[in-house]
Amino acid sequence: MDATLLKDLFQKVKDGTIALDEAVQKLKLLPFEDVGFASIDHHRSLRRGFPEVIYGRGKKVNEIITIIEKMIAKEDNVLVTRLTDSKATIIKKHFPSSDYSSTSRLLTIRVNPIEKRGKGTILVMSAGTADIPVAEEATITATFMGNDVETLFDVGVAGLHRLLQNKDVIMRAFVIVVVAGMEGALPSIVGGLVDRPVIAVPTSTGYGASFRGLSALLGMLNSCAAGITVVNIDNGFGAGYAASLINRL
Amino acid sequence: MDATLLKDLFQKVKDGTIALDEAVQKLKLLPFEDVGFASIDHHRSLRRGFPEVIYGRGKKVNEIITIIEKMIAKEDNVLVTRLTDSKATIIKKHFPSSDYSSTSRLLTIRVNPIEKRGKGTILVMSAGTADIPVAEEATITATFMGNDVETLFDVGVAGLHRLLQNKDVIMRAFVIVVVAGMEGALPSIVGGLVDRPVIAVPTSTGYGASFRGLSALLGMLNSCAAGITVVNIDNGFGAGYAASLINRL
Amino acid sequence: MDATLLKDLFQKVKDGTIALDEAVQKLKLLPFEDVGFASIDHHRSLRRGFPEVIYGRGKKVNEIITIIEKMIAKEDNVLVTRLTDSKATIIKKHFPSSDYSSTSRLLTIRVNPIEKRGKGTILVMSAGTADIPVAEEATITATFMGNDVETLFDVGVAGLHRLLQNKDVIMRAFVIVVVAGMEGALPSIVGGLVDRPVIAVPTSTGYGASFRGLSALLGMLNSCAAGITVVNIDNGFGAGYAASLINRL
Amino acid sequence: MDATLLKDLFQKVKDGTIALDEAVQKLKLLPFEDVGFASIDHHRSLRRGFPEVIYGRGKKVNEIITIIEKMIAKEDNVLVTRLTDSKATIIKKHFPSSDYSSTSRLLTIRVNPIEKRGKGTILVMSAGTADIPVAEEATITATFMGNDVETLFDVGVAGLHRLLQNKDVIMRAFVIVVVAGMEGALPSIVGGLVDRPVIAVPTSTGYGASFRGLSALLGMLNSCAAGITVVNIDNGFGAGYAASLINRL
Amino acid sequence: MDATLLKDLFQKVKDGTIALDEAVQKLKLLPFEDVGFASIDHHRSLRRGFPEVIYGRGKKVNEIITIIEKMIAKEDNVLVTRLTDSKATIIKKHFPSSDYSSTSRLLTIRVNPIEKRGKGTILVMSAGTADIPVAEEATITATFMGNDVETLFDVGVAGLHRLLQNKDVIMRAFVIVVVAGMEGALPSIVGGLVDRPVIAVPTSTGYGASFRGLSALLGMLNSCAAGITVVNIDNGFGAGYAASLINRL
Amino acid sequence: MDATLLKDLFQKVKDGTIALDEAVQKLKLLPFEDVGFASIDHHRSLRRGFPEVIYGRGKKVNEIITIIEKMIAKEDNVLVTRLTDSKATIIKKHFPSSDYSSTSRLLTIRVNPIEKRGKGTILVMSAGTADIPVAEEATITATFMGNDVETLFDVGVAGLHRLLQNKDVIMRAFVIVVVAGMEGALPSIVGGLVDRPVIAVPTSTGYGASFRGLSALLGMLNSCAAGITVVNIDNGFGAGYAASLINRL
Amino acid sequence: MDATLLKDLFQKVKDGTIALDEAVQKLKLLPFEDVGFASIDHHRSLRRGFPEVIYGRGKKVNEIITIIEKMIAKEDNVLVTRLTDSKATIIKKHFPSSDYSSTSRLLTIRVNPIEKRGKGTILVMSAGTADIPVAEEATITATFMGNDVETLFDVGVAGLHRLLQNKDVIMRAFVIVVVAGMEGALPSIVGGLVDRPVIAVPTSTGYGASFRGLSALLGMLNSCAAGITVVNIDNGFGAGYAASLINRL
Amino acid sequence: MDATLLKDLFQKVKDGTIALDEAVQKLKLLPFEDVGFASIDHHRSLRRGFPEVIYGRGKKVNEIITIIEKMIAKEDNVLVTRLTDSKATIIKKHFPSSDYSSTSRLLTIRVNPIEKRGKGTILVMSAGTADIPVAEEATITATFMGNDVETLFDVGVAGLHRLLQNKDVIMRAFVIVVVAGMEGALPSIVGGLVDRPVIAVPTSTGYGASFRGLSALLGMLNSCAAGITVVNIDNGFGAGYAASLINRL
Repeated sequence: MDATLLKDLFQKVKDGTIALDEAVQKLKLLPFEDVGFASIDHHRSLRRGFPEVIYGRGKKVNEIITIIEKMIAKEDNVLVTRLTDSKATIIKKHFPSSDYSSTSRLLTIRVNPIEKRGKGTILVMSAGTADIPVAEEATITATFMGNDVETLFDVGVAGLHRLLQNKDVIMRAFVIVVVAGMEGALPSIVGGLVDRPVIAVPTSTGYGASFRGLSALLGMLNSCAAGITVVNIDNGFGAGYAASLINRL
Repeated sequence: MDATLLKDLFQKVKDGTIALDEAVQKLKLLPFEDVGFASIDHHRSLRRGFPEVIYGRGKKVNEIITIIEKMIAKEDNVLVTRLTDSKATIIKKHFPSSDYSSTSRLLTIRVNPIEKRGKGTILVMSAGTADIPVAEEATITATFMGNDVETLFDVGVAGLHRLLQNKDVIMRAFVIVVVAGMEGALPSIVGGLVDRPVIAVPTSTGYGASFRGLSALLGMLNSCAAGITVVNIDNGFGAGYAASLINRL
Repeated sequence: MDATLLKDLFQKVKDGTIALDEAVQKLKLLPFEDVGFASIDHHRSLRRGFPEVIYGRGKKVNEIITIIEKMIAKEDNVLVTRLTDSKATIIKKHFPSSDYSSTSRLLTIRVNPIEKRGKGTILVMSAGTADIPVAEEATITATFMGNDVETLFDVGVAGLHRLLQNKDVIMRAFVIVVVAGMEGALPSIVGGLVDRPVIAVPTSTGYGASFRGLSALLGMLNSCAAGITVVNIDNGFGAGYAASLINRL
Repeated sequence: MDATLLKDLFQKVKDGTIALDEAVQKLKLLPFEDVGFASIDHHRSLRRGFPEVIYGRGKKVNEIITIIEKMIAKEDNVLVTRLTDSKATIIKKHFPSSDYSSTSRLLTIRVNPIEKRGKGTILVMSAGTADIPVAEEATITATFMGNDVETLFDVGVAGLHRLLQNKDVIMRAFVIVVVAGMEGALPSIVGGLVDRPVIAVPTSTGYGASFRGLSALLGMLNSCAAGITVVNIDNGFGAGYAASLINRL
Repeated sequence: MDATLLKDLFQKVKDGTIALDEAVQKLKLLPFEDVGFASIDHHRSLRRGFPEVIYGRGKKVNEIITIIEKMIAKEDNVLVTRLTDSKATIIKKHFPSSDYSSTSRLLTIRVNPIEKRGKGTILVMSAGTADIPVAEEATITATFMGNDVETLFDVGVAGLHRLLQNKDVIMRAFVIVVVAGMEGALPSIVGGLVDRPVIAVPTSTGYGASFRGLSALLGMLNSCAAGITVVNIDNGFGAGYAASLINRL
Repeated sequence: MDATLLKDLFQKVKDGTIALDEAVQKLKLLPFEDVGFASIDHHRSLRRGFPEVIYGRGKKVNEIITIIEKMIAKEDNVLVTRLTDSKATIIKKHFPSSDYSSTSRLLTIRVNPIEKRGKGTILVMSAGTADIPVAEEATITATFMGNDVETLFDVGVAGLHRLLQNKDVIMRAFVIVVVAGMEGALPSIVGGLVDRPVIAVPTSTGYGASFRGLSALLGMLNSCAAGITVVNIDNGFGAGYAASLINRL
Repeated sequence: MDATLLKDLFQKVKDGTIALDEAVQKLKLLPFEDVGFASIDHHRSLRRGFPEVIYGRGKKVNEIITIIEKMIAKEDNVLVTRLTDSKATIIKKHFPSSDYSSTSRLLTIRVNPIEKRGKGTILVMSAGTADIPVAEEATITATFMGNDVETLFDVGVAGLHRLLQNKDVIMRAFVIVVVAGMEGALPSIVGGLVDRPVIAVPTSTGYGASFRGLSALLGMLNSCAAGITVVNIDNGFGAGYAASLINRL
Repeated sequence: MDATLLKDLFQKVKDGTIALDEAVQKLKLLPFEDVGFASIDHHRSLRRGFPEVIYGRGKKVNEIITIIEKMIAKEDNVLVTRLTDSKATIIKKHFPSSDYSSTSRLLTIRVNPIEKRGKGTILVMSAGTADIPVAEEATITATFMGNDVETLFDVGVAGLHRLLQNKDVIMRAFVIVVVAGMEGALPSIVGGLVDRPVIAVPTSTGYGASFRGLSALLGMLNSCAAGITVVNIDNGFGAGYAASLINRL
C-alpha cells in the first residue's frame, strides 16, 4: 500500500514530472507511518529475539487460543503467563505439545528448539516456601529465553548458615534473581556478597503489616547494598525476562 | 540534512542508477526520524496553537531567561508557571514587558496580541480564600490562551446561598473550572446544577487529615455528579489549559 | 458482698480486735475494686440507661444466644449489631419475639417498653441508595434508644433541589445524622444550613478511588462547615448511639 | 399546587384584603422550594438533555425494575451501569427490548431514537486487553448520549508503532477518552500528539504495586502533557459522559 | 431590593395590569435567590447565634483586618483561628481591645458581652503536654460561644490513677472534648466512664509512626466505646464549636 | 565429616607432606561452612532449645506431613501455625497424637514432654471477643514453649472496671502479651500499671477505618507507656515466642 | 494523708459514733483514689524503680526546668529525652551536674548513684552511621536504667562479614536492641543467630521510598525470624527502656 | 594475621605438641572469621573492583574527611554521594584534587586512573529538566566506575518526536538508565523500543499527587514493557552502580 504510494512518487521523480526538492517536501508531508514505521516494529522483533508473551490474566480462554494459533503460524515459541489451571486444561487439549506448570502458572509451547543465548548462569534464589511459585515463574521464563538457570530455594535470612553453605553457587552466577516476601531482606544479603547484578522480586506472601507485598517491596527499594534493582510484586516473569536481557549482553 | 539524504536517493532514482523497488526498500530502512518525524512536531505546534509553556519550578533563573529569549526570537507568547517572586524580579528586569502575578506565580509576555479562540465563557470558581492562588493560575492561563474568563470566588458549600445567588453566571458558562480544598465538595454541587463540562482542581489547603490535598482529590474523583473530570492537586494551570482546549472545539 | 467484707473489718475495729493502723493497712491491701470500683460500673450502667450492645460480627451464634439469655434474665432490652442473615435465622428461633432487620443487620428484643428519653427529633439523612443500610442502622439504633427519629433518604448533593425541598424537616431536627459515601459532601451542605449538631457517617460504597470509604471519611473530617463530627466508616450504630446521648441532654 | 398557593396570595393582593408589604413578607416565609426551586430541577433536566442514569451496583433487581418502569413511563431512554449478568438476565425478561453488554456491564433501553448531539467524533482508546471492559463502558455511554464514537484498542505504550500507525484516527477525533491500567502512560503520549481534550481513565487491572488502579491514577494525574483530565478508577461511564458534555458544546 | 421587585409585581396584580396566572408564572421565572433565599442566610445567622469565624491561615494580615472591621461594624463578636504571633501583633495594634492566645493561636474581640447559652458544663481534657495548644483552642472557642468550660489536662492513659482521681469533674460534665495524640486512647477510656457525648480530637504530636496524627485519628475512629465522634487532626476549634452546638440544645 | 577433612589436612602437616604455608592456603580455600559454620547452626539449635516451627499457610498438606515426619524422626516437638481446619483434619489422620486448636489454627505434637523453662508466669490478655483467636495462638505457643500461662480475655478499655478488678493477676505476671484490635489502647493501659515487659499484638478485627489492623498497629507503636514492644498484626505466635524468650532469661 | 482520712473513719467506728452500715456506705462514697488507688501509683513507682522520664519535645525550657526541680527535690534521677541543643545549653546552666549527649539528644542528672539492676548485658547494635543517634539514645537509656551495655555499630547486612566477626559479643548478650533504617533487615539476621529477645528499632534514615522509616518499620514487623518485637520509628529510648524491663526479670 | 594464628596451630601439629583431634577441635573454636571469612570480604573487594562509596548524608564533615583519608591511604578512588555544597567546600580544601558536582551532589577523588571496565556504552536518559540532578548522579557514578556513558536529557513522553529523533543513540546503548518523575512513563516507552536492560529511576520532582516520587515509582514498577527494573526514588547512584555491574559482565 505505502509501497504503491512511494513508487508513484519515485516514478514521478524518474519521469522528471516532479522536481527533486518538491519530492523531498512531499515525502515529508506523507503520514510518517506509511513510509518508515512499520519497519521499526519489524526491526524490534528481530533484535529482541524473544517471541511476544501472552499475559493470561483477564483474557478469555478463546482469546488466548486464537493468539497462540497466530504465533504458531509465525513459528514463534509461545509463553503464556498467569494462566489458571482451568484455562490451562482447555488450552492443553488444543495444543497437546504445550507444557503447563501449575505452580508458576506458566504455559509454554516450543515450536522451535530454544537457542542458548545467555553467556553465564542465571541463579534464582528464594527465601521462603511461599515464594517458590514466583521463583519458578522466573526460572522457567529465563530457561525459555535461552539461559542456563540454577535455583537455590528456602534460603531465608533467619537461617544465615544455609545461605552461606551455598556460597559457591552464588559466587559463580552471572545474574541473580532473588525472590522474597515478608521483610524482603535476602537481596541485601546477596547483594553484599557478590559483584553481579541482583534483581529483587518482592512477593505478596505474609500477612498483616506485609500489606500484600508492600513491606518487601519497600525493603528492596531501600536496600543498603548497591547494585540491586527491583521489579513489581510477584513479577517473577519480569525478573526472569530482565535477567535474560542482561545475560545475553 | 535529511533533505540531502533524500535528495541523493531521488537523484539516483532519476538517474536510473537505482530501481524503483529498491528505492522504496531503501527508504524503509532509513532511520524514520530522518524522513518524516520532524514534521510531526511542526504539525503539532501548528495545530495546538499554543506556545510551549515553561515550568518554572526547579529551573534556575538563567535557564528560564535563555528559554524565554528563544521563544521571543520565534515570536511566541511566553507563559512561565510556578515562578517564585525572587526569580520573577530578575526576569522582569530582562523582559520589562513581562507581567508577573505573585498570587498565581505566573509570568506572561505578550509578543503577539492574544487571539480570541474560545467559543464561550470559561468560569473559574473557588471555594475558600486559600484556594484563590490556584484559581488565579487557572484564570490567567485560560485568559492567556485566548478565552473570555469569569470568576466566582469564595462560594464554599457551607454557605449554599452565596452559590445559588450566582446561578446566572454559573448557568451561562461554557466550561467551568472548580477549585476547592478541604472536602472538595464544590464540583459535585456545580456538576449537579449544569450540563457543561466541569474540571475540578483539588488544592492542598487545609490541615490534618486533608493530607496536603489528598482529601479533596479523592472527593472529586468520587463525585456523585457525572461529567466531572479532575486534574492534579494545585494544578490550576492544567485546568485552565484543559478548559481552553475544550472551549475552542 | 464487698459490704460483708468491709463490715467484718469494721466490726473488728469496733470490737478492738484489730488496731487502727492495722485496719488501715488491711484496707489498702484489699483488692481496690472490692471497695470502691465496682460501684463505678454500677453507677455507669445506671447513668447510661442503655443496655449493653452485642457486636455480632466474629461471634458464634451460640455465644450470642448465651449473652442474650443473660441480658433477658436481667430484664435488659437487647440490641445485636452486624448480624448476618443466617445467624439471625437461628437466633429468631430461640427468641421468637426478636425483630431482625436484614438491611441494617440489627436484631432487637424488647423486654421492656422503650422509654422516650430524647428531647427532640433525630433526623437521619442519606445521600445514595447504597447508603441506606448504614442509615437504617442509625435509625433503628436511635429509635431503640428512645428517640423520635425521622428519615430523609436519597438526597445526594448532585440533586440539590431535593435537599432544599426538604428544608423543613431538616430545620426542625435536634440532632442530624448524615450518611454518605463517595465524596461524602452531604454533611458539609447540611452543616451549613442548620445550627444543630451534625454527626457524619462515611460509607464504604463507591469503587476505585473511594478506597472503601476513605474518600468519604477524609471529606467529612475536612468539612468546611463547623460543628460536624465524624464516626467510623459504615458505623451507623455509633452515629445513632452518639445522637441519642446528645438528644437526651 | 404551589400555583394554587401563590394564586391565593395574588388574589388577596388583588382583592386588597392583604397589604403589599404584608404580601411580600408572606411570600418570603413560604417554603422557598414552593416558589422557585422546583423549576431549577425542571430547567436542569431540560438543559442537560440526558435521561437519569441508574447506578446498578448495590441496588436490588426489583428496585431497578421499578425505576426503569417509571423512566419508560416518562418516555426516557434508560441506561443502567455496573449491572451483573444475573441481574441483567432478570431485567431483560421484563424489558425484552433492552440491550445488555456483558463486557461493559451496561444495559440500555431505547424508548426514543437517539438524537445525534455530538459535533465531532469521540475516540475511545485503550492500552491493554484487560482495559477493554472499561473502554466499552465509555464507548457505549458516549454512543447512547448521541455521539459518533470510534475505538482504538490495544495500543499500549510499549508498542509505540501501533499507536503511531493510527495517527489519523487519533488526529481527527474531537475528544479522546484514554483508558489504561498499570503505569497509565498512554494519556501522556496521546496528550502530547493532539490539541484536543483528553479524558484519562485509570483501570484497576494489573497486580502487586498497581494497588488496584492507584498506580495508573497517580500516573495520569501527574501527566507531563497539559490538557489531560482524569476520572475515577474504572469509571468508563463518567469518561463517556464527560466526553459527551464536551462534544456537544 | 428584592422587596421592590416583588412590590412592583404585587402592585401590578393589584392594579389589574397583570393577570393572576401570568403573575404566578413571572414569579417562578424570577431568579430564586431574589425571593426566598437571601432570607435563608438571614435566618441562619439568627438561628446559629454565632458570629462568622475567620480562618486566619493563608489569609494576609490586611485581609483579616478588613474582615474584622466589617464584623465590628455589624457589632459581631470576632473569633480568628490559626493566627500566627506575627500577624497577631499587627492586628492587636489595630484593635487594642482584642485578646490573643499565643498557645491556641486564637484572637478574640468582644464587641458585645458573651451571652451564656450552654446548659451544662463542657469539659476539655487532654492527654499530654504537647496536646495543650489544641485543648486550649477548644476551651477558648467554647467559652467564647457562651459556655462554662472546665479543663483537665495531662491525664494520659499510661497514668490511669490521675484520670480516676478526677472522676468527679468528668462525671459532672455535659459534653466532653478529649484531645490526645500518639495512640489516641484517652477518648475510649472516658467514653467508657460516662454517658455523655464525647468529642475526640486527634493531635499531630508524636513522631515516627504517629504519621502526623494519623495514628491518633484512626484510634479514635475505631474506639470500642460507643458514643464517641471525631473531628479533624488538631481541630480544637471544631471540637469546641460542636460541643457548643450540643450544649445549647 | 568436616572433621575428617580437617584431620586429613592436619595429618599431612604432621607427616610433613604439605608445607605450612600451603596448608594455611588450603584451609582458606576450603568452603568456609565446612570448617566453622555448620557448627553455628548446630550451636544455635542447641541454644535456642525450640524446635523449628512450621508456618502452615501456603504449604500443601503433603509438604507439611513430610516436614512433620522428619521432625518426629529427630524427636522434635512439632508446632504448625496458621493451619486451616481442612488441612488439620488430614494431618490428624496421619498423626493421631496431634492436637489441633481450630480457634488458634495451631497444631501441636508432643514427642517429648514439655520441659518447664519459663521462670515466671506469662499473662495473655485480650480486649474483645474477636481478638481471642490471636490471644489463643499466643497462649498455646507460650505453653508449648515451656511456660506457665495465665489468660485474661475480654478486658477492653471501655470497661475499665473489669480490667482493674483483675489487678492481681496482672501484677503477678512476669511478661504480659496484650492482644487488641480496633484502637489498640489496652497495651498502653497495662503498660502504665506494671513494670514488666509488655508485648502488644494488634489484630485485624474491626471494620472501616481499622484498615485491617493498621489502626491498632499504629496505636500500639505510638503508645505513651514506655516499655511496650509490638509484633505484626495477628501475630499471636510471634508474641508467644518472644514472651518465651524473655521468660527464660 | 489518706491514712488520716481512714483512721478518722475507723476511730469513729471504734468510738461507736458511726454505725457499721453507715461506715461502709461512707467508705464507698469516698473518692476511690483516696483509699486504694493512690497506692497503686505509689506501688508502681516503687516497683518500676525508674524515675519518671521527661519527654523534652514540645515542652518549653522553663517547663522542663520546673519539672526537673521537682524531681530533684524528690531525689529522683532525671532523664530528659528529645532535647534540642539550644534548650540543653540553658538547662545545663541551671543544673551544672547534668550530662547532655548532643547525638542522642538525652540529658541526664544523677542525683543518686545508678544501682545495677540488670542481670545480663544489653547489646545495642546499629546498621548504618546515620542510625547511631537512635542507637546512642537506647544505649544511654539502658545504662541509666542500671544495665551493662555493649555496643556494636555499623554492622549493616550488606557487609555480612563484619557482623559475623562480632559473633561473640552478639552471642553473650542477654537482650539485643537492633537499630536500622532503610530496609531494616538487620534484626532478622540477628534474630536468626541468637535465642535472646531482640528489640528492633526502625529509623527514619534513608530517602525516597523509605518514607521516613515506614520501610524499616514494615520490614521489622514482617521479620521471618521469630522472637523479634518492634518499637516506634526512631524510638531509641523506648527500646532501651523495654530492654531494661526485660533484663531485670 | 590470621595466617600467623593458623601457622602456629599447624606448627604445633607438625611438632606433635598437639594431637590431631585437639587441633581439629581448636580450629572449630577459633572465631570463624579468622579462618575463612575475612577472605570473603577480601575476595569480595577484589572481585567487585569498586572502592567503597561514602554516603554523605547524615555524616559530619569531619567523619567524611577521616574516611577519605583512610581510603586514600589504601590507594582507593573515592566517591562521596549526597554531599551538600557547604560540606563539599570544606572537603575540597582538604583534598584539592577532588572534583565536586553541585548538581549531582557527588564528590570524587581519582587516586588511580579509572580503568575502562564496561563493555558497551551506558546511556542515561531523563524526562524533564528537574530530573537532571538525578540523571547526572547516575552519569558520574557510571563514568567513575569505568564506563563510557552517553546522555540524552529532556526527552519527555509528551514530546515523542524528540525521543524518536534520538533513536540511534538509544539503539546503540548496552544498558539504559531512564530517569523520570511525574508519571514516570519514559522507561515504558524506551523499554518497548530496545532489547537491552533498562534501569528506571523515579524522581521526587512534581507536586501534589506525585507524592514525592511515589507516582513515578509505582508507574515504573507497573510498566507494561518487560525487562525494566527499578531503583529507589532519586537513587541515581544506585542506577549508575547497577548499570556498571551489568555492563562489565
